[in-house]
Amino acid sequence: MQRKLHAFEQALDGFVPASAPAGLGEAMRYAVLGGGKRLRPLLVLAACEAVDGQGEAAMRAACAVELIHAYSLVHDDMPCMDDDVLRRGKPTTHVAYGEAKAMLAGDAMQALAFDVLTPDEGVAPALQARLCRLLARSAGYDGMAGGQAIDLASVGQPLDEATLRDMHRRKTGVLLQASVMMGASCGNADARALEALDAYGAALGLAFQVVDDILDVTQDSAVLGKTAGKDQDANKPTYVSVLGLEPARRLALQLCDEAHAALNASGLADTAWLRHLADMVVERHH
Amino acid sequence: MQRKLHAFEQALDGFVPASAPAGLGEAMRYAVLGGGKRLRPLLVLAACEAVDGQGEAAMRAACAVELIHAYSLVHDDMPCMDDDVLRRGKPTTHVAYGEAKAMLAGDAMQALAFDVLTPDEGVAPALQARLCRLLARSAGYDGMAGGQAIDLASVGQPLDEATLRDMHRRKTGVLLQASVMMGASCGNADARALEALDAYGAALGLAFQVVDDILDVTQDSAVLGKTAGKDQDANKPTYVSVLGLEPARRLALQLCDEAHAALNASGLADTAWLRHLADMVVERHH
Repeated sequence: MQRKLHAFEQALDGFVPASAPAGLGEAMRYAVLGGGKRLRPLLVLAACEAVDGQGEAAMRAACAVELIHAYSLVHDDMPCMDDDVLRRGKPTTHVAYGEAKAMLAGDAMQALAFDVLTPDEGVAPALQARLCRLLARSAGYDGMAGGQAIDLASVGQPLDEATLRDMHRRKTGVLLQASVMMGASCGNADARALEALDAYGAALGLAFQVVDDILDVTQDSAVLGKTAGKDQDANKPTYVSVLGLEPARRLALQLCDEAHAALNASGLADTAWLRHLADMVVERHH
Repeated sequence: MQRKLHAFEQALDGFVPASAPAGLGEAMRYAVLGGGKRLRPLLVLAACEAVDGQGEAAMRAACAVELIHAYSLVHDDMPCMDDDVLRRGKPTTHVAYGEAKAMLAGDAMQALAFDVLTPDEGVAPALQARLCRLLARSAGYDGMAGGQAIDLASVGQPLDEATLRDMHRRKTGVLLQASVMMGASCGNADARALEALDAYGAALGLAFQVVDDILDVTQDSAVLGKTAGKDQDANKPTYVSVLGLEPARRLALQLCDEAHAALNASGLADTAWLRHLADMVVERHH
């Protein structure tokens, strides 16, 4: 896993050009290189491994999904959104480069994600199209961007658990699930395995957000590398505010069990890495 | 052409969902429907016609390229960028919906462009991949976003004509050229025809920006549907400020001739529509 992560960092470094004009490349590199847990890329690579898939395609998919995630953080941190100054232990991109360049860097990172997925050669065109489809749908109005719109509209609003779950599913869950499915698309998994991996991704995606909500109230900013307690301060509904801390912890463990159960039903032999990632997501709060 | 444009407006309307969550769909529709000259979609459809290409693919490409163009306007108009209040004769999207929703709507529109290009069926996967590749490269750091970064950095800076040309080529030219090549990709044009269409797109793309710079000083806001004179006010270099008004007019006509000459060399029979679009671009200032 460390070896794969190292190869990923090298590939990503190669895709984000320092030479992009007028300092744009510098801002893009600041936003996406050298930080973050790289959970989404790891999910892509682990799912590809589970289906014995094509490595080049999976590495590109891993870079693409991290570019989408990183662009969303850049835009999300801007003053007109969450107005945050700390991310991955560093000043946010707009603090370091100004708002205009941060917005442009985010825009260019989204375009770069699809550029990375569509090389002139090395990945079969039909697989390129499938990876673009999965990424576009999970990043757009029905996925991540839609979830952020709900998040924005929900500040100070009481939400029931179903609405909260829908928001989180879109905002973070769908992209995590898409990461798994992008990796799975790089091989020739049968319908049963794909269905199981989809269920694994859904459970893990939701678990991630529940744990994120728990960490927001139990950890401090230095440990998180981002501003702690900000959901609470913004009066945003979270799993902790809706369910309470202990029930939220039980939900996270239950979702982790669901992820493992999905893998048990997959018929895939080599799921050790996916299992480890599910555990990692839930054990972040220990 | 009117009939095609009508079909395009219907297709675009169908792709941008009013139902997207928390008002996001409404903001997206405001930004992209019912306005604009639709030059880029027309270029896609005309190029497809010239190569007798596949209609469904071209219509999707036309919608995708307009979504990219429209998102770039939304972000470009925001306070941290050009800070403009008028676009296509209406208040800009952030004036109508607030900055946060405008930024998210732009982000979701970029994702939607790639979603539209990758349907489950109806377009060959290899063509989907090629269309995504052309669009991603023209929208990203090496194209539109890169051009905007140079634009941003150039305020108040003296630029020579070569640098100005590079900025404009990236900022608007590359996406116009990509529109032509996306349409051309929907058929089976030979290498000579593709090369000619590429040259046509390059000449037209540059002509468009020269004319835009002319209009910025010769027309008022009511005619333009956007704030006139703003480049001058922002002390931004333009073709008019670098070359002077009459030389800029001569350059536009010369580029129009180049576009026609490229079509003459294409070996394609049915280029009437493409010729008309080149004339239209240059005659906007009469």
